[in-house]
Amino acid sequence: MNTYLFSEKSLREFTENVFKQIGCPEKDAVTAADVLLTSDLRGIDSHGVARLSGYVRLWEKERINPKPDIKIVHQTPTTATIDADSALGLVAAPFAMELAIEKAEKYGSGWVSVRNSNHFGIAGYHALKAAARDMIGFSMTNASPLVAPTHTAERLLGTNPMCYAFPAGKYPPLVVDMATAAAANGKLEIAQRTGSSIPQGWVQTKEGLPSTNAHELKNGGSLLTLGSDYEHGSHKGFGLSAVVDILSAVLSGANYGPWVPPFVAFLDPLPNLPGKGIGHFMGAMRIDGFRPVNDFKEHLDQWIERFKSAAPIHPEKPVIIPGEPERKAEKDRKKNGIPLVAPVCDDLKQLAEKLKIDFPEFKAL
Amino acid sequence: MNTYLFSEKSLREFTENVFKQIGCPEKDAVTAADVLLTSDLRGIDSHGVARLSGYVRLWEKERINPKPDIKIVHQTPTTATIDADSALGLVAAPFAMELAIEKAEKYGSGWVSVRNSNHFGIAGYHALKAAARDMIGFSMTNASPLVAPTHTAERLLGTNPMCYAFPAGKYPPLVVDMATAAAANGKLEIAQRTGSSIPQGWVQTKEGLPSTNAHELKNGGSLLTLGSDYEHGSHKGFGLSAVVDILSAVLSGANYGPWVPPFVAFLDPLPNLPGKGIGHFMGAMRIDGFRPVNDFKEHLDQWIERFKSAAPIHPEKPVIIPGEPERKAEKDRKKNGIPLVAPVCDDLKQLAEKLKIDFPEFKAL
Repeated sequence: MNTYLFSEKSLREFTENVFKQIGCPEKDAVTAADVLLTSDLRGIDSHGVARLSGYVRLWEKERINPKPDIKIVHQTPTTATIDADSALGLVAAPFAMELAIEKAEKYGSGWVSVRNSNHFGIAGYHALKAAARDMIGFSMTNASPLVAPTHTAERLLGTNPMCYAFPAGKYPPLVVDMATAAAANGKLEIAQRTGSSIPQGWVQTKEGLPSTNAHELKNGGSLLTLGSDYEHGSHKGFGLSAVVDILSAVLSGANYGPWVPPFVAFLDPLPNLPGKGIGHFMGAMRIDGFRPVNDFKEHLDQWIERFKSAAPIHPEKPVIIPGEPERKAEKDRKKNGIPLVAPVCDDLKQLAEKLKIDFPEFKAL
Repeated sequence: MNTYLFSEKSLREFTENVFKQIGCPEKDAVTAADVLLTSDLRGIDSHGVARLSGYVRLWEKERINPKPDIKIVHQTPTTATIDADSALGLVAAPFAMELAIEKAEKYGSGWVSVRNSNHFGIAGYHALKAAARDMIGFSMTNASPLVAPTHTAERLLGTNPMCYAFPAGKYPPLVVDMATAAAANGKLEIAQRTGSSIPQGWVQTKEGLPSTNAHELKNGGSLLTLGSDYEHGSHKGFGLSAVVDILSAVLSGANYGPWVPPFVAFLDPLPNLPGKGIGHFMGAMRIDGFRPVNDFKEHLDQWIERFKSAAPIHPEKPVIIPGEPERKAEKDRKKNGIPLVAPVCDDLKQLAEKLKIDFPEFKAL
């Protein structure tokens, strides 16, 4: 597939301009663009500018409010719930994480649940904000229902990612950022583009039968939870996904389970929603609330070194520390630019025309 | 296999007597026995009195201190680290959870890491203590290295369980209590007893090859993380297991990774340990720190009802709410007694003789 290369700077400016053009204040446009660009830089192509036109379509449907009045509706010294007033999750989640960090600075830890929000980009962005302040960062969100719990073919859960970020000493932060489904939608999209089949254990048909069809979701099929089947622990993946849904939405007053409003603008939310928008959950814990930061970092460095030096089964496949591939991509793309595949590039061009903004320069790869 | 039935009361008294006989103060013996009995009552047979003689053997090796001086070594309003002085985890973890709950009562949330401890029983016991106080409970622990991360056959991780407990309204608490391995050791033991093979994806040989041999660990093989292989997300199971290891041990100053002291007394801990004992991590968050408790419970009830009423793929296998099977077992065993298989019963009889205490009455099933 044709691929085009953009500089970080020009793609960032373009993304900021898109958000400004739909009415976001300058500061929010900068934040939202930073979340998306961080995703592209870290090699998580499915969650970066590839989603930009999706956000704009939600704005066109008035499901995203570009000038939200984000409010703390309830709080204690270390906990809070915020109502994001239909903000971009790309704006609401950084607000919530900042509040969690402030609380952690004063009291050791801070925990913020968010309702009435929208898609927040990559979970890792938010958790890393805490790690940069010598805290352990937690972030999670619920998402459009595409995943079936064990024993049913009904789509009742999102890919509901959870993320934990830990600052190390000599090494970059250790970041566990994962969908609680066996495989996230992005992996299906790659197979769709290349016309390949997918492994058994990622999706099932709408009757609940095994499938290797990358297009199965279009036939009413569903993604499977981490573990894939009961014998291999799909009930654990279901449990983790439930934790994300409950902390993000039952705790905040957002929608949960099958009622989470779909990310795609062509599907309307269900009637009689039990909550508001989608939900997130953010947390920060000061490391020096437990032990001196340097002691922690030294030991985490030792942990990383021990795992990295484990004897590989195949010499060409060493043990990968969680977050390592994203950090490598970031280093490379910061230097060499961000590649976008043709369909994403075309999509952004159309967006530029529609919103009457300049499209950045790029070169073919 | 022959099975024998014990009343909860008599098995509890016996277990308390064992702990008193090895030198535990009355109060600690009662707590430790309560953790084990709760496991047996909830149907988690691998973590109840079946492990009693294992704890005693660790005491004989002076690796468990029956009269510990458990100390808070570091704290903020909402965080703390405790040194358990080689206590039974069955005593140290309840101490830590009580401290987390106290902090949550004052400040909204409380988080306690524990070092210099031992095996703490089922994670669910501890998290449920918070749920009983209208809090969300978190508990996790690292454990003896038996699990290999993705791409190696080295045993670097324990089955490292994580647990989250949420109080509901009409329904019992929703409890996600899971090993981060594809299958915990208990499942292998069942297959060993019945002489059956196990599904691919639970263990690998010491060379890292697939295996269906329930005895593979005795040959130097290893358990696999949740996800089983890279294609199905074993790197996510590795990530979750890493989170448990880091929060429990790197944060507290306990041992981590391959240095976690083995539960079996016939294996000595490795030399040059980086920390003290094994580690746990406990947390509690007040629900009314986020929203009124009744609103949360009403919505969690709705969540439970929606998932329970999902159309099953096979009519005889409905969707199971996390924690439901354990709650059913508890109801049944509270009423009808606790069944123990012959090898466990024989093991306890020998323990009674060794410690010179009465063995409870039982009847054959």
